[in-house]
Amino acid sequence: MLYHVAMTVRLPADMDPAVAGEIKAREKAYSQALQQQGVWRHIWRVAGLYENVSIFDCRDNAHLHEVLTGLPLYPHMDIAVTPLCRHPSSVREDDR
Amino acid sequence: MLYHVAMTVRLPADMDPAVAGEIKAREKAYSQALQQQGVWRHIWRVAGLYENVSIFDCRDNAHLHEVLTGLPLYPHMDIAVTPLCRHPSSVREDDR
Amino acid sequence: MLYHVAMTVRLPADMDPAVAGEIKAREKAYSQALQQQGVWRHIWRVAGLYENVSIFDCRDNAHLHEVLTGLPLYPHMDIAVTPLCRHPSSVREDDR
Amino acid sequence: MLYHVAMTVRLPADMDPAVAGEIKAREKAYSQALQQQGVWRHIWRVAGLYENVSIFDCRDNAHLHEVLTGLPLYPHMDIAVTPLCRHPSSVREDDR
Amino acid sequence: MLYHVAMTVRLPADMDPAVAGEIKAREKAYSQALQQQGVWRHIWRVAGLYENVSIFDCRDNAHLHEVLTGLPLYPHMDIAVTPLCRHPSSVREDDR
Amino acid sequence: MLYHVAMTVRLPADMDPAVAGEIKAREKAYSQALQQQGVWRHIWRVAGLYENVSIFDCRDNAHLHEVLTGLPLYPHMDIAVTPLCRHPSSVREDDR
Amino acid sequence: MLYHVAMTVRLPADMDPAVAGEIKAREKAYSQALQQQGVWRHIWRVAGLYENVSIFDCRDNAHLHEVLTGLPLYPHMDIAVTPLCRHPSSVREDDR
Amino acid sequence: MLYHVAMTVRLPADMDPAVAGEIKAREKAYSQALQQQGVWRHIWRVAGLYENVSIFDCRDNAHLHEVLTGLPLYPHMDIAVTPLCRHPSSVREDDR
Amino acid sequence: MLYHVAMTVRLPADMDPAVAGEIKAREKAYSQALQQQGVWRHIWRVAGLYENVSIFDCRDNAHLHEVLTGLPLYPHMDIAVTPLCRHPSSVREDDR
Amino acid sequence: MLYHVAMTVRLPADMDPAVAGEIKAREKAYSQALQQQGVWRHIWRVAGLYENVSIFDCRDNAHLHEVLTGLPLYPHMDIAVTPLCRHPSSVREDDR
Repeated sequence: MLYHVAMTVRLPADMDPAVAGEIKAREKAYSQALQQQGVWRHIWRVAGLYENVSIFDCRDNAHLHEVLTGLPLYPHMDIAVTPLCRHPSSVREDDR
Repeated sequence: MLYHVAMTVRLPADMDPAVAGEIKAREKAYSQALQQQGVWRHIWRVAGLYENVSIFDCRDNAHLHEVLTGLPLYPHMDIAVTPLCRHPSSVREDDR
Repeated sequence: MLYHVAMTVRLPADMDPAVAGEIKAREKAYSQALQQQGVWRHIWRVAGLYENVSIFDCRDNAHLHEVLTGLPLYPHMDIAVTPLCRHPSSVREDDR
Repeated sequence: MLYHVAMTVRLPADMDPAVAGEIKAREKAYSQALQQQGVWRHIWRVAGLYENVSIFDCRDNAHLHEVLTGLPLYPHMDIAVTPLCRHPSSVREDDR
Repeated sequence: MLYHVAMTVRLPADMDPAVAGEIKAREKAYSQALQQQGVWRHIWRVAGLYENVSIFDCRDNAHLHEVLTGLPLYPHMDIAVTPLCRHPSSVREDDR
Repeated sequence: MLYHVAMTVRLPADMDPAVAGEIKAREKAYSQALQQQGVWRHIWRVAGLYENVSIFDCRDNAHLHEVLTGLPLYPHMDIAVTPLCRHPSSVREDDR
Repeated sequence: MLYHVAMTVRLPADMDPAVAGEIKAREKAYSQALQQQGVWRHIWRVAGLYENVSIFDCRDNAHLHEVLTGLPLYPHMDIAVTPLCRHPSSVREDDR
Repeated sequence: MLYHVAMTVRLPADMDPAVAGEIKAREKAYSQALQQQGVWRHIWRVAGLYENVSIFDCRDNAHLHEVLTGLPLYPHMDIAVTPLCRHPSSVREDDR
Repeated sequence: MLYHVAMTVRLPADMDPAVAGEIKAREKAYSQALQQQGVWRHIWRVAGLYENVSIFDCRDNAHLHEVLTGLPLYPHMDIAVTPLCRHPSSVREDDR
Repeated sequence: MLYHVAMTVRLPADMDPAVAGEIKAREKAYSQALQQQGVWRHIWRVAGLYENVSIFDCRDNAHLHEVLTGLPLYPHMDIAVTPLCRHPSSVREDDR
């Protein structure tokens, strides 16, 4: 089941760069593992901003909650969740 | 080059159902032709609303403008465009 | 799976009262059938407004979409959907 | 009498985890005691966010005020209160 | 129990003045009857606008809903409801 | 002459409780003195929030400004001022 | 006593130009009479928009209400009222 | 040429009162010098708020920019600029 | 002197296409004449929307007002005006 | 390909002036190098504010992202990106 998730990162301007770097490295590894599993189906950068637009494929709302709250950058993010479904005009049989 | 486009349809409540049906049929055909060409890369329905979230792959801003203003439902839509690019955490080499 | 849905009804001020009455009667029957099936788990009136707050229990996002777009008053409603899950402080084992 | 209450928690990013943990433990105990008494009738987590949607059953506005301002997390919450009543389409005799 | 209610009237610019006058006369009579009963405790005009700020004293949320939806101008109003209680700094024993 | 004033208090979460308590005590005394003089005609608590809705009876705009900026909590408040007048539907001769 | 009033005119696009012209002529005469009396102290056009920013000098809130609701264009205006007073940095003794 | 400028002052709650007092004294002197020169044509206090509404008469946009960024309180202000011109209903020949 | 002007066109969906076409033709001629004179310095289409972003070079605010209110599409536009000046980081001596 | 970019600078009020000066000097050099290359086609100051409106000419969305995130002031800016294209009423053959 699909969810559209918009994430805006707001790291404090005075955060220690080493600390920030370490969190970002864990964030990347976390994201790539979920992409490999097919849970984090798409991730795109919003041009010019420290924001991404992502598509998640989760079992249910609880699964999505577990995935998002596990993000290493979660305490520094504004998140907006929108549930999606297959569009009747899609040329695909499934929700790709 | 990718663009995130959110479309909200606002058909007048008193539109003749036959007219509305004909516009929607042309909209679907127009959308599916662009999906087949790889220009309209994704289209998802926002659950519960007469809205979609779409990803377009266009040559440039002018191409996107031409594609969107050609939508049969265009005069009845609110549209929000966000330019995207590949995310550095993506597991893919390209912008899929 | 639960969804919080806020619905605001905006019937045109000049709608024929007989037409409005007929739509409302169908809306009530539709709502009560879904309540009996356990899909529309709660419906409350917002005091002083022509709005309700509802909790739906659906199989997935597509099921919710089907249920909401089938509402007789759907063309005259503003709708906001929020996906829910069990709260860790709940005293219940399930999502009641 | 019912109230819909939406609570968003905004703990400072630099709060001592031990302090945060202690406040959350008191919050959970406070919430569960009120749930057992039937005052905090429902609590649901908003998927992906540090927010909940709750239904309170209080004697009057003053009772609601006393209950909410007693929340251990109250100084760190944004709260929105909406008074509710039984919906005329409800299949129940009371405001369940 | 007290409620703060802000009402903004939006009569269509092309409404027949005789119809508008008749609705306003019924509105005034309705308001004055409720003031006499002590239910509509205060009504003030917002200077320069077709808006009022009112204080209602109702038995409960359902009573408030019944009172507001009975307003002859109700279909032409935007309404915002805020539940109130006695302020701890008030010099009065009750909620006056 | 009447003014509707909405006040939201935003004390810093890390303010010394003794300092906060002292300011609140002065605020209460200041408010009660003005209530006794008939200047601060009404004060109500917004249920569930650290906000009040008040009605002031001042000689003119300058008097209102002097009264509000003298509030001990003034540096920690968001304030919204709305000038009022007697409503033509009021059952009273004056602006009560 | 001074008030800052921002007025935005929204004449229906399909209004008969003769009717619009007649209302505007009455509006101008009404405005100029009040300017001559010193009640409508300033009126400026917002560059590029069908809006004005005005300063009114009225006896009290009720006087302002009477003046504004008497505007021939009043049914077609959005109005925002802000009460003013002399600024302590003003070089003038009064509120000019 | 006229500009409407709204200024909201947001001094940090923990600013040293001596520092704040010194900045305010310079602000007042700066404002009064410009008023004497006819550049800062009007300044009014918004009743109840730490805001002013001002009218500036500048040679051009660059002159306005120079005047505003020279304000001693500039780093602590939110500023909104609106270009004005003479209103066709004004009884004056110029833009007074 | 420069102004940034954002224009959003909102033609009624039911406008006669011949009437709309005639207004748009006059709009284009009007725009091109002002571009030739150097008054309308730039005009760009916002990709995907019926909006433009323009830069005007006018003598003063009154000149801008005259130019904008003369637009054939003016009654069907939402307009936002922002006064500009040369940026200190510009590589040009003037405001190009 | 063109993009409209609005940038608002929000330097912390307590930033060391020497640090701020050094960042601004690097920002200016960075901006001027890109202007010389034709990438940063226009930059204008918004009169009275610490904001600019800029036009960028980039190869694609990824190029724009690289250019913007390289700004020395980037961590202290709010940025809004709008993709542009040639307007059909432009008198120019290209997107100038």
